[in-house]
Amino acid sequence: MSFDAMWSALAPVGRAARTGGYRRYAWTREDATLREWFAGEASARGLDVVEDRAGNQWAWDTARGDPDATPGVAVGSHLDSVPDGGAYDGPLGVVSAFAALDVLRERGWQPAVPVAVVNFGDEEGARFGVACAGSRVITGAMSADRARSLTDADGTSLADAMAAAGHDPTHLGRDDEALGRIAHFVELHVEQGKGLVELDAAVGVASAIRPHGRWRIDLPGRADHAGTTRLADRSDAMLAFARVALAARQAAERHHAVATCGRVRVEPNGINAIAAHVTTWLDARAPRAEQAQAVVADVQRVVDGLGGAVTEESWSAATEFAARERTAAVLGGVPILDTGAGHDAGILANAGVDAAMLFVRNPTGVSHSPAEHAERADCLAGVDALATVVEVLTRA
Amino acid sequence: MSFDAMWSALAPVGRAARTGGYRRYAWTREDATLREWFAGEASARGLDVVEDRAGNQWAWDTARGDPDATPGVAVGSHLDSVPDGGAYDGPLGVVSAFAALDVLRERGWQPAVPVAVVNFGDEEGARFGVACAGSRVITGAMSADRARSLTDADGTSLADAMAAAGHDPTHLGRDDEALGRIAHFVELHVEQGKGLVELDAAVGVASAIRPHGRWRIDLPGRADHAGTTRLADRSDAMLAFARVALAARQAAERHHAVATCGRVRVEPNGINAIAAHVTTWLDARAPRAEQAQAVVADVQRVVDGLGGAVTEESWSAATEFAARERTAAVLGGVPILDTGAGHDAGILANAGVDAAMLFVRNPTGVSHSPAEHAERADCLAGVDALATVVEVLTRA
Repeated sequence: MSFDAMWSALAPVGRAARTGGYRRYAWTREDATLREWFAGEASARGLDVVEDRAGNQWAWDTARGDPDATPGVAVGSHLDSVPDGGAYDGPLGVVSAFAALDVLRERGWQPAVPVAVVNFGDEEGARFGVACAGSRVITGAMSADRARSLTDADGTSLADAMAAAGHDPTHLGRDDEALGRIAHFVELHVEQGKGLVELDAAVGVASAIRPHGRWRIDLPGRADHAGTTRLADRSDAMLAFARVALAARQAAERHHAVATCGRVRVEPNGINAIAAHVTTWLDARAPRAEQAQAVVADVQRVVDGLGGAVTEESWSAATEFAARERTAAVLGGVPILDTGAGHDAGILANAGVDAAMLFVRNPTGVSHSPAEHAERADCLAGVDALATVVEVLTRA
Repeated sequence: MSFDAMWSALAPVGRAARTGGYRRYAWTREDATLREWFAGEASARGLDVVEDRAGNQWAWDTARGDPDATPGVAVGSHLDSVPDGGAYDGPLGVVSAFAALDVLRERGWQPAVPVAVVNFGDEEGARFGVACAGSRVITGAMSADRARSLTDADGTSLADAMAAAGHDPTHLGRDDEALGRIAHFVELHVEQGKGLVELDAAVGVASAIRPHGRWRIDLPGRADHAGTTRLADRSDAMLAFARVALAARQAAERHHAVATCGRVRVEPNGINAIAAHVTTWLDARAPRAEQAQAVVADVQRVVDGLGGAVTEESWSAATEFAARERTAAVLGGVPILDTGAGHDAGILANAGVDAAMLFVRNPTGVSHSPAEHAERADCLAGVDALATVVEVLTRA
């Protein structure tokens, strides 16, 4: 399929009519549809799809050699979304990877090494709480036991969800075979900020991913009747949550970081019932690791005072993309900029893979929202840039 | 069925295995099961079940006369629950009503007027937000149009939910025929507080229901990426909610009221997404109406400052039960006590029905919680008291 036809095929999958946003979560029906779409695009291009031990899909052009013998170049991103996410975050990288292959083939490209398009599973962590779950598992950044025991809001474990989707969770784990096939990885992504707008450039190269992490916060209360329980007799988990959310914001201001409580789960969540338990998640990021950790320490003190608990769900140290200067030079000196968003490319880079990232301009900077957007001309410039980078990396 | 057998039959319906609490919401499968149970118990006692224009179930003993000609005595409560509610709030009143009839019939009771057991629908308002919806509709305290247009968390209207459950929503409305059949209404309920514990009594009589209401609060934000959006550029609806929840508590302290934000709905509710919209509900109650209204006014000012909106969903003025002294005297001078909880008996009393309430001791005072409890001996004392009140009200 052409670039535009690929977008048309993806457009309806997991789209919420009311918000216009996407709800594409790991190991759901929508996820299965996206995986089938990926396999179909791969097959149409003569690529062989293999899944690694975490269920990430790799579409290898094995006609160009066996990647087990000669490591190759992998290009791609993810297809899942945050709740009510935009169309571009993830899919732009996968669609552009297929499109870049098409561009190169039309040019009579003769790669010297195997090439793959990859779809990393569960990048957003929207369902099980850990972002980049697919790349974390195959690099060993998350243990198989931890991954299997993650649960969603309904209490379903990742292992059970995987099994229900027809994938064997007993294979989960670090996958050195899959990693050994990758000499270079390139991920193209819509920018999640206005850096390229300010620099007046359609495409840029990532210098680094700032340190970031997620912490689950459990706040206890005692269920009781909202009308008959005296204020003095209450243990209201919702008030505890309110204090934590405000404390996180204040700590972020203090430490020059960003911190967000974007998700909350309340039990029993009844209008006339005092909250018995609130679970929320703290997302904290900063230019330097110690700033993000200082935010968490401040929040921890507040949570301790409320009788709650803070549990680290993920932590990613700063990631420097070593390939940044080289990649920008190949593209004729496009801007180099850092980001506060985590990506599979960052997980792979931290695991020693030579990884690079390209960003495509986002006119409003808005992401993780139905309003996320990229202009078609900028997307096509991204495809061209990706093709150029791949062409250089696959030279003899 | 006997008192204990009725409890056993109800015990599994809508019980959440994880919490042990009940989830019995209006016009759901669980609600249909409870309605079938009610019809079965009525039928076993030779009572004829009719539904009024709001779908409330009335099981009349028409062998004792036609209530359309001779208004009678209705006894009952509700079978629905708050999210993860207890076993007693509501069902105790319905089970005790059937059991009281059994006790009276065994004694050779010859009532001079018709008697009914009633199951009021949607008393908790857990699904559509308005408590006592069934009694509000038939008394005209809530208009049919407003009732039909109420929506649940999935956007399903009450009209659609009713229709899906096989009930015609076009009949909804004030029902003077149904009200005309009731000369007296008696509701027995587990106490939602420790008043009877402090008074060392198994059973008491309600003097009044304190003024109370519910207000929906909508707080706007702007969806964006939690990692890449600068603090200064954010419009985070979760922080607005935190300020509102704390302001409500402070206002309640200031005005000697109680105020609760027990329920919250967040969009998109993603860990790495800034909240684009938060909806919460304020439940406010006080000894005097002006105290509760002062809480709402204070919260309104905070919400206005955040660009949000406050919408009244229900308001119930103070309800005095005129029958309180007479009822307590019939029972040999049991304690008379007021409550902060709303009840269908209050809605009927405000509509001019001669209504009385009995409370059964709650050892911990906890309600709207799986931990809600009443001792069997106290429940049986409640049945006896209810039988005595009905016997007196049905004398020639």
